[in-house]
Amino acid sequence: MSDRISNETELIQTYLAPLARGCAGALDLSDDAAYISPIPGMDIVISTDPILAGVHFFADDNANDIAWKALAVNVSDLAAKGAMPVAYTMTLAFPDAPERAWMERFASGLAAAQQAFGCHLIGGDTDRTSGPLAIGITAIGQVPTGKMVRRRGARAGDHVFVTGTLGDAALGLKLRSSGSIFGAKVTDEAKSWLIDRYLRPQPRLQISAVLQRYATAAMDISDGFLKDLRRLCGPQGIALTFSDLPLSTSARQIIMADIEQRACVLAGGDDYEILFSVMAADKAAMMAAASLLGVCIKEVGVLRNESEILVRDDEGNVIEVSQSGYDHFNSL
Amino acid sequence: MSDRISNETELIQTYLAPLARGCAGALDLSDDAAYISPIPGMDIVISTDPILAGVHFFADDNANDIAWKALAVNVSDLAAKGAMPVAYTMTLAFPDAPERAWMERFASGLAAAQQAFGCHLIGGDTDRTSGPLAIGITAIGQVPTGKMVRRRGARAGDHVFVTGTLGDAALGLKLRSSGSIFGAKVTDEAKSWLIDRYLRPQPRLQISAVLQRYATAAMDISDGFLKDLRRLCGPQGIALTFSDLPLSTSARQIIMADIEQRACVLAGGDDYEILFSVMAADKAAMMAAASLLGVCIKEVGVLRNESEILVRDDEGNVIEVSQSGYDHFNSL
Repeated sequence: MSDRISNETELIQTYLAPLARGCAGALDLSDDAAYISPIPGMDIVISTDPILAGVHFFADDNANDIAWKALAVNVSDLAAKGAMPVAYTMTLAFPDAPERAWMERFASGLAAAQQAFGCHLIGGDTDRTSGPLAIGITAIGQVPTGKMVRRRGARAGDHVFVTGTLGDAALGLKLRSSGSIFGAKVTDEAKSWLIDRYLRPQPRLQISAVLQRYATAAMDISDGFLKDLRRLCGPQGIALTFSDLPLSTSARQIIMADIEQRACVLAGGDDYEILFSVMAADKAAMMAAASLLGVCIKEVGVLRNESEILVRDDEGNVIEVSQSGYDHFNSL
Repeated sequence: MSDRISNETELIQTYLAPLARGCAGALDLSDDAAYISPIPGMDIVISTDPILAGVHFFADDNANDIAWKALAVNVSDLAAKGAMPVAYTMTLAFPDAPERAWMERFASGLAAAQQAFGCHLIGGDTDRTSGPLAIGITAIGQVPTGKMVRRRGARAGDHVFVTGTLGDAALGLKLRSSGSIFGAKVTDEAKSWLIDRYLRPQPRLQISAVLQRYATAAMDISDGFLKDLRRLCGPQGIALTFSDLPLSTSARQIIMADIEQRACVLAGGDDYEILFSVMAADKAAMMAAASLLGVCIKEVGVLRNESEILVRDDEGNVIEVSQSGYDHFNSL
């Protein structure tokens, strides 16, 4: 008996249908569509971010991590909108019939992710492709009617915050691609922590309710901090000091040894942290709420009526970044 | 100036954002997510069917037709579930940056389709891929709470119907691949009509309300009539007479000349007609309702308590079909 999955029915019934259990509207993945009965007073929020081997992950990454990332990057968008995930659909395009062992790891990564994020698989489709492995998830969440947090909405005077730490995933990607790149500058423990930050993004769902209540604008950082900050600022601008940006101990270690790596913090992609703004009057209440929920946030600056975004070092010198962030459309 | 689109912002703002106009929750495609405010008393129905160049369409098909098909095959699933479309998300993976003229045709095909089907683009994502052009649409519809028509639900004694005509798209695909295949047996007019049936499926939205009211089970026919009939029958079976199946004049012409082409009717894919069952007691009322709405339907048989599906010719001989329908998973 081959260790590859031989038909779509086995793929769906053995590996995917268990991920739909407990969700009535998924109909055990035995139908051509699924349904959701919306809770009165709630809007449905929808986001879709496919991931492709060779673009968003390495084809030889652990299937468990690939699955986690595929769902996490979509749930991250919902979190940034103040929404909580409910369900997701998933399309899979395989270059070859997957091995059973691979598919088991993939399904187990999804199971862990959907349990962590509180949602179920409700439908999808599988195909074979002459291209790379592609995973297309559409995440569906809910938010009280009219309360979805927009990307546009920040005003001059608003304070800008980020969750977590910046640049870890971009450094992790460098380490994943070429482990020796930072030589003795970084401990093995720090290396594996940074790689994990690249492989397994953590959607900041804990901050979701806080954003809903206080944020004037929010988005997740996926294409690089400065590029996404530009989007959040709209016509406004901001002056930042690099040392005010939240960095992990591991990232700090690397930057202390090689200052060029600041570019990973400013323009590296895949952070999946949330960038948001609040009115000055709400700042204290928002910080108290975030603290109560145990979410790490850090203020990075205040929006002003000049469109420029400037990052300075502690001596006041402007840091120029040649990379302007990730544009998937131009990246191949 | 190159005639290729150089960045994602141009692609979205110039070609796609107009498709979101008129839908508040789409936020002009300027956000990372969209929202839908569900109508009280309605369930949300979700279906996703991506299409890939080389699998579901030819890379050199008219972009207008590719776009139409991408949306139509998804709306067809909603129609079969008794739902009406509201919105859709779309992911695009391009092997090369698209030419502006191509993208204009693609957007105009989508505009025509979404106007015909009554829905808007509300979000999505674009990527570059080393694989073939891939279009991943997730369609979102609505149906009165609890009224989504299931694929499972047909019982012995139920009458089985199909909309429209069968086999046209499979014959059209043969003609599209090799125009001369049927020689003088088929007029140019019939050829182009059949190819059009392959290129531009017509989701049977008119029947949607009828299904909601009367169908015990329903699904659209995309993988071949017999394969999908097997799914609808569940543990039941059915005995059919080939001449009872609804055929277009063009398909009939070809089959009269080459009886082997009956396989296109029985096992060819891409029909996007709706297969459904009703209780005997509801048959007359259902037919009256369908007639009032101007939908062509035809009864093909009655479900019985034997699992076998048999197709006979007018002499009572069983027609054997070697192809068992299309399995995209095994097709490459």
